[in-house]
Amino acid sequence: MRATTLHGDRDIRFTEVPDPVIAEPTDAIVKVVASCICGSDLWNYRGENKITPGMTIGHECLGVVEEVGAAVSAVRPGDFVIVPFCHCDNTCAHCRAGAQSVCENLGFTTSGQAEYALVKQADGSLVRTDGVPDDALLPGLLALTDVMATGWHAAVCAGVRRGGTAVVVGDGAVGLCGVIAARQLGAERVVAMSRHEDRQELARRFGATDIVAERGESGEAAVRELTGGVGADYTLECVGTDQAMKTAFKVARPGSMVGFVGVPHGVNLPVNAMFGRNVGLYGGMAPVRRYLPELLGLVLHGTIDPGPVFDLTIPMDQVAEGYRAMDERTAIKVFLQP
Amino acid sequence: MRATTLHGDRDIRFTEVPDPVIAEPTDAIVKVVASCICGSDLWNYRGENKITPGMTIGHECLGVVEEVGAAVSAVRPGDFVIVPFCHCDNTCAHCRAGAQSVCENLGFTTSGQAEYALVKQADGSLVRTDGVPDDALLPGLLALTDVMATGWHAAVCAGVRRGGTAVVVGDGAVGLCGVIAARQLGAERVVAMSRHEDRQELARRFGATDIVAERGESGEAAVRELTGGVGADYTLECVGTDQAMKTAFKVARPGSMVGFVGVPHGVNLPVNAMFGRNVGLYGGMAPVRRYLPELLGLVLHGTIDPGPVFDLTIPMDQVAEGYRAMDERTAIKVFLQP
Repeated sequence: MRATTLHGDRDIRFTEVPDPVIAEPTDAIVKVVASCICGSDLWNYRGENKITPGMTIGHECLGVVEEVGAAVSAVRPGDFVIVPFCHCDNTCAHCRAGAQSVCENLGFTTSGQAEYALVKQADGSLVRTDGVPDDALLPGLLALTDVMATGWHAAVCAGVRRGGTAVVVGDGAVGLCGVIAARQLGAERVVAMSRHEDRQELARRFGATDIVAERGESGEAAVRELTGGVGADYTLECVGTDQAMKTAFKVARPGSMVGFVGVPHGVNLPVNAMFGRNVGLYGGMAPVRRYLPELLGLVLHGTIDPGPVFDLTIPMDQVAEGYRAMDERTAIKVFLQP
Repeated sequence: MRATTLHGDRDIRFTEVPDPVIAEPTDAIVKVVASCICGSDLWNYRGENKITPGMTIGHECLGVVEEVGAAVSAVRPGDFVIVPFCHCDNTCAHCRAGAQSVCENLGFTTSGQAEYALVKQADGSLVRTDGVPDDALLPGLLALTDVMATGWHAAVCAGVRRGGTAVVVGDGAVGLCGVIAARQLGAERVVAMSRHEDRQELARRFGATDIVAERGESGEAAVRELTGGVGADYTLECVGTDQAMKTAFKVARPGSMVGFVGVPHGVNLPVNAMFGRNVGLYGGMAPVRRYLPELLGLVLHGTIDPGPVFDLTIPMDQVAEGYRAMDERTAIKVFLQP
């Protein structure tokens, strides 16, 4: 098949690789109908993670089931499915407790930016739609495979409920989806911390009531002023850097929770401040499968539409252009058409 | 008045100091009827915190209101009161949200091991009893001023509810009170991690169903075995050392919360493991006043009795003996009689 492959720092190609094969009876192969590039792919692209040259890349996709292993019974070839980026059996103790991203049989989509993707634990992971969704719905559904579910996890972990003020640290696709989530889960006021005008505009479209463009101490002061000196009732950390985490703890009101979903890079948690101010931290890799049924309903009914996080659509064979655009921040998130 | 004073490393005395005076109209002075030594006093005693030679010490006491400032209306001279170690106005935004230990007008008892203690924000802080409690109740009520409320905070922050397994890391007075709290809040199984036989026995008396005497990796393995490989539904960290915190994160099941109340000393939080396993951390200095009405009822009705954490009772003028006993771990917690 043809697949996006990574060969070195900023060396991304669309090449011919072996087709994935059913290795376990619980596997399935999905023919990719829509795919995209994730902010976290950039860590590999920029050489900040160790890579294997020639490796396939991409963990977000949806498509049509092509083939299933002997033990797969919940989906059949021809079914249109949402593929959560992390695969789970959805039956182990951790899954049953809602921690599907720590499943005892955890797997990941590893060739999402390709013609075919292998899904481990197909029965536990894949969520079918009734028939093939309209093309216009594809971006919104594709967002469910990672960023929308991840922003949702941040809001759930931060404890967002009816009323109160949520602050979202980070204006990437996940942060923007965090705005949707905070609003949908009932926050009365949603403050998006964003320096970029295009992202500020999208944040407003997604339900942000206030924008704080400043960073660091002045950003923290701005949030304090917006919240009458009290701080945020719910704080969503959607970046993963030490600065973002520090900001999150500074803007969170005493006794509240920071929901964090940014993969930590160089983060030192301020344990004394957490203790002294009674501000907690909860989150991690999103248990996408847990939220998929609910989020799928919200997208299909038009209650939420995370689709606009995709501000650039290109054919998959031009994937290198997409990486460049996201690396240079000329695009928020790139939609890839096979 | 006569008061316990600290003069240097392990140099504790019972000396004559000036009486406390009403400085603010919201102050009150309480004549101490019962007092005690806290594990956290040992940090000062051992020279691990910076001290002012001659300073009074002690933050746990209860007694009779002696004098009140002009703005105090909720208590009167002669009232018997429980004195939370941290004082709060109980009206600011943080207090109203249940974060009384981050009150905008936070104060502390600083001469609890003395004849008189000054209470800031008397109206917000003090909780009256109906009449003078029976002597037999004093230990249980005294525990409410700090350790019982702190153990309760650990259990609340860990999310203890009906069913499931709680693991308590730490067998000091707070950890033992954490056992009471976890049980009272509904945990079906309460695992106390304790190496000391006398504390194990007290933990069982307080409701522990299982004891894990091992520490480090073998202790973690023992908890995993007790929980069918899954880990604890609720984890209470009641020590404050890096080892205790690491153990807490290791025994916590994916998706669960570690409630922490041990004052952190040299703790480095394992942010990557927290992210990867979706284990949160929530807690800090206990908002004692928030829990006092409920806990007072539980003690007065005999539903809980944290009194047995006191295993040594001595006259206050022999306070130095008490510090020595706790320092050498021959006593769990020392009750001081004025």
